[in-house]
This record gives sequence, structure tokens and C-alpha cells, in this order.
Amino acid sequence: MSAVSDLPTPALCVDAADFEHNLTTMTAALAGPRLRPHVKAHKCTAIARLQAAAGHTSFCAATPREIDDLAAAGLGDDLLLALEVVDAGRLARLARLEARVTVAVDSIATVDAAADAGLREVLVDVDVGLPRCGCRPAESGRIAAHAAQRGLDVRGVMGYEGHAVGLPDRSRRAELCTQAMERLAEAHAVVGGDIVSAGGTGTYDVNTFATEIQAGSYVLMDTAYAQLDIPFRIALGVVATVVSVSDDYAVADCGLKALGMDHGNPEVEGGAVWFCSDEHLTFAPDDDHPVRVGDRVRVVPAHVDPTVAYHERIHLVSDGVVVDVWPVDLRGW
Amino acid sequence: MSAVSDLPTPALCVDAADFEHNLTTMTAALAGPRLRPHVKAHKCTAIARLQAAAGHTSFCAATPREIDDLAAAGLGDDLLLALEVVDAGRLARLARLEARVTVAVDSIATVDAAADAGLREVLVDVDVGLPRCGCRPAESGRIAAHAAQRGLDVRGVMGYEGHAVGLPDRSRRAELCTQAMERLAEAHAVVGGDIVSAGGTGTYDVNTFATEIQAGSYVLMDTAYAQLDIPFRIALGVVATVVSVSDDYAVADCGLKALGMDHGNPEVEGGAVWFCSDEHLTFAPDDDHPVRVGDRVRVVPAHVDPTVAYHERIHLVSDGVVVDVWPVDLRGW
Repeated sequence: MSAVSDLPTPALCVDAADFEHNLTTMTAALAGPRLRPHVKAHKCTAIARLQAAAGHTSFCAATPREIDDLAAAGLGDDLLLALEVVDAGRLARLARLEARVTVAVDSIATVDAAADAGLREVLVDVDVGLPRCGCRPAESGRIAAHAAQRGLDVRGVMGYEGHAVGLPDRSRRAELCTQAMERLAEAHAVVGGDIVSAGGTGTYDVNTFATEIQAGSYVLMDTAYAQLDIPFRIALGVVATVVSVSDDYAVADCGLKALGMDHGNPEVEGGAVWFCSDEHLTFAPDDDHPVRVGDRVRVVPAHVDPTVAYHERIHLVSDGVVVDVWPVDLRGW
Repeated sequence: MSAVSDLPTPALCVDAADFEHNLTTMTAALAGPRLRPHVKAHKCTAIARLQAAAGHTSFCAATPREIDDLAAAGLGDDLLLALEVVDAGRLARLARLEARVTVAVDSIATVDAAADAGLREVLVDVDVGLPRCGCRPAESGRIAAHAAQRGLDVRGVMGYEGHAVGLPDRSRRAELCTQAMERLAEAHAVVGGDIVSAGGTGTYDVNTFATEIQAGSYVLMDTAYAQLDIPFRIALGVVATVVSVSDDYAVADCGLKALGMDHGNPEVEGGAVWFCSDEHLTFAPDDDHPVRVGDRVRVVPAHVDPTVAYHERIHLVSDGVVVDVWPVDLRGW
């Protein structure tokens, strides 16, 4: 077991206590199949195994590769590909897996692609207010009927209130979530089925309509979700080395290729971020926290998902010691 | 050889004719060692080989891993690690390579790290106006003297005018570049040496002071650099599949994990980008360019470097056919 201080940097690290807190807090709130963990946030079969051990044996994925590798890892009890795919080769591959695979469909074309590939189960994906995938509620019956006609089992509906999950104001978040679930209920009334799949880390406790919540970020967290009044802790950080120090600022070796930047700059403990370059972070150290070349700093990303996707491995850390290493094995497509 | 239309998506693709144009245009402007190609932009030894074949056999790198793998690929004639590293293990590894390795230093600590590791050659990195690495010109003599005292050969100076390279206005760009090079000249007068290494794609033709230009983006390009009046073409794009179509917008399978986002949204040919999610791009197709589920679209990133770093391979494309596949083998740290 190596010390964090010996890791080559930038190194993606997870605090073991905070991770455990997040895992158990969510399981206490949403037991067993009430949570369908979304693996897109962490992209680690090692973390998925821990979620399964906590009782959550159905998973949600964003790419065919994630489904493939979850199945190969023996986590194929109930896998949902929660976005539309029309690649015939990939869908056929998913159909051949020794796993239960359900795919999201939102059009006649995606139903036909699933049926042609030999897949057996689908959810009708409904537009609940986020302009992304999902059919209008009024179209859901037609799509479900077409799926049934093509021999597919329609297990229910799905709809992601992505426009609500990140809102810090709880009442506004709950209001948009309720409106979204009214649209999903409208579709569910027509489509039927046992599953109403929705939600995310930000709405895990306000979305009481869905039968299962597709949360992923909760287990690692980031600065964006940390602005919400939810009980999850920031477990993830990038450990970086200070490589240059000037009068007003310092530079650490953690840049754009180690951080998802769509939500803006990361935060750095003990300083204020100025900007990121490809392999650098320029920051102003706090007056009470001067740094020297060779010091380590912890950088906390604004958005967990695209951050993790840059890294080959996550180091699980406890009291400055690396206690486990998790390959980020679900990366790529 | 497969058709682009058969590639699983998202697929990073490079147009062969545009790539060749960029390669030859730069070589015509900066022959042989006047260009020190920066591999951080493309992270492919395959592309580095083509740059070497065009006469540029000295390379610039941003990570120890890039240096390692360039050396392993037989491209180790003259490698410059153009950022400061104090990791003793990694530096010692670089010192053992069968390659000529020069590292940037900007402090006593980085000089000592290089000397302790057994490295033999350095450039003094100078702050020329971008608040990142680099010592003040007035400090450069002291650092060079310390390096000499530690037995290191000081080959010259380096300074990156990163605050100038992206400015669309040529006269302003040239003005800031000139000011930056005045600072570098001040350091060079003290430090001496044959090498004055500076510049990038945006200043390749206005920086006439540097003995070598560290350009990387020119060979692939992005929408940010395309705003400049430089003769390089956008060769790089991400081919994506339309997976969902609504009344006002469509969704393609190219999101935050396939795109560097720090420079903002990408562009999509035939449409206007609304926003990106982890694995999705929502866009409004142009009126004269309606799309259907299954159609392919070309997405052009705003920033090449962090885009390429997400992908396992680049497909070289000519007339819709994949004519070569380049592993992005210099990724990670």
C-alpha cells in the first residue's frame, strides 16, 4: 500500500470514509431496487460491485460498452441502457449477452433497431421537460404499441428531469420535478408496465413518483452537486503537485485533460483557481496556506462524470494511504 | 478499409486532405528544426512520425509519459519536456531513456530535481506574460547559474506566449507576442544557449524571435484557432449519430466525454448547438438540413487538445473511407 504523497500526479483519489458515507446514506434512503445506480458517473465495475453488495443489483448505463462490461463483470441481473442507440452491431451484441438488458426507445426507429437486433425488453423514454431524448407523452402509446407489435416487452417508462436535478433551491427543484413526473405519469397511464425510472442525485429524495431513481453522482460528488442541500459529501478529488510558485500565484499539474470543465473551473483546497491550461492549474494560494514546489494540493472538480472519464484509475484513500485502486474500466465507447 | 458511415460513434475522425494541407503548409513556413511539434495536441506517435518524416525531428511534450512513449517509438532525437516536473521517479526514468531529453526548469527546486535524477540538459523557462510556469527574466541568470553548477547543460530559454496565441486580431496578437519575446530576449541575453523555444499555432508566423516554434494544434485545428487568420484547416471532427429527433431539435451521441469543453460548445455541421450532456449533444438542425434518426453529423470541437485526450483512436478519413487508424497512445500520465 502506497502513500498518497508518493502517487504520480495528477491522481484521481476518493476518500474512503466519504465514499462509504455516500454509499450507505443513499442505501438507507432508497433500498435495493429503489435505486438503479447510474454507472456513467464513476465508470468503475469495482464501484458497481460495491453498490450491488449494498443491495442495488439493477444498473443504469449510458453506453453499450458500459452494458457489455457490467455483464462481463457478472453484474447483469438487470441492465438499462438509458439512452437511445441505433447501431445494429452494438445492439445485436447486447442482445447476445448473458444478462438482462433493457433499452430506452423514443421513436419508431429506435424500437425497430432494438427489435431487429434481437433485444427483448424496452422502456419508453419520455420527454419530461429537458430538451434531449424522449418522446412527447402523447406519442408514448403509439411507440409502446409498436414495440409490442414487434414482440418487445415494454417494462414501463423512463424520463429524466435533468433540468431540475442541479437546482440548488429545493422548492424550485421539487416543483420542476413534480411537473416532470406529471408528464411521465401521463405516459405511464398509457404505456403501463412495472417500471417508472427517473431521477438523479439532485432529486433522489424529492422524486417520490418514480419506482426507481437513476442516481450516479451521489457516490463521488462534485462542487456543482455540493451546492444542493443533499447529504452527500465530496469524496472525489484530483491530487496534484505544485510545480511552480510565483509571487502571486502557483501552478499545479492538473489541467484540462484531468478535469471535466463544462460546469466551470474546479476548486482547489487552500487557494483560489485562476484558470486551467491543458496540463496546468494556476491558482492563488490562500495567505495562510503558502505552497512550495513539490507540495501536494487537492483539486475538486465541478463535474464528476467527464472528470472520471479522463482517468485510468481511481485511488481509494484512507488517512493518506492508498487502500485500493479501481480501474476506470467502463471508459470509451 | 471501412466506411466512416459504419464506424461506431462517437468517432474521432481526421480528414486526410486537410491534415496533409496543414502538415505541408507548416513545413513550408517553418522547415526542419524551426518547428518543434508539440505532441500534446494530438497525442499520437503516428502523427509524430509523419511530422518527423516532414523534417521535424525534435519534439515538445507536456507529460513524462509523452516523452517515454516518443522515445519508445524511436522519435527520441531531441525531446523537450516543456513543463516543470519534480517527480523524482519519473525524472529518473526520463534520464535512463535512450533519447536526448531536455526539461524545462524555472526554479532552484526544479533544477535540483533534474540534476538529482541524472538528467543532463535543461531550458530555463521564462514568464513572458502568461501567469503560469516560468521565472521572471531577472531570475533567469541565477537559475541558469545554479543549473551549470549542478552540472547541467543549459541549452537556452523557453517562454510560451499563451496569452497571445489565441487572439483573432493579428496586430494585437503580434504586439503581445513582441512584448513577450522582449522578456524572453532579456532572459536569453543572460542565460545564453542556442535555443529560444516559444510560440504556438497562433503565433507561428508572427514570432520571428524564437529559434523554434512549439506548435501542435495546427495539424488538427479546432473552432477556436479557426477564428484566426492562419492558413490551417479544421481537419478534426467527431462523427456522431442522430439518436432522437423532436420538432425543434435533434440529439446526437457526442457529449461531454467526447469533447474538450473549456473553450465552450462545439459546432455541428448543418445545425446550431443548444447544449451538451455527458453522452448527448442537443442541436437545432438547419431548416435546409433536416435529420432523421440514424443520420450521421460532424461535430467540430472548440478545443482540440482536451478533445483528443478522451479518445482511444483517430480515424484518418478520405472520401468517406477510413484509410488509417491512429491510436491516441500518448494519453494519461
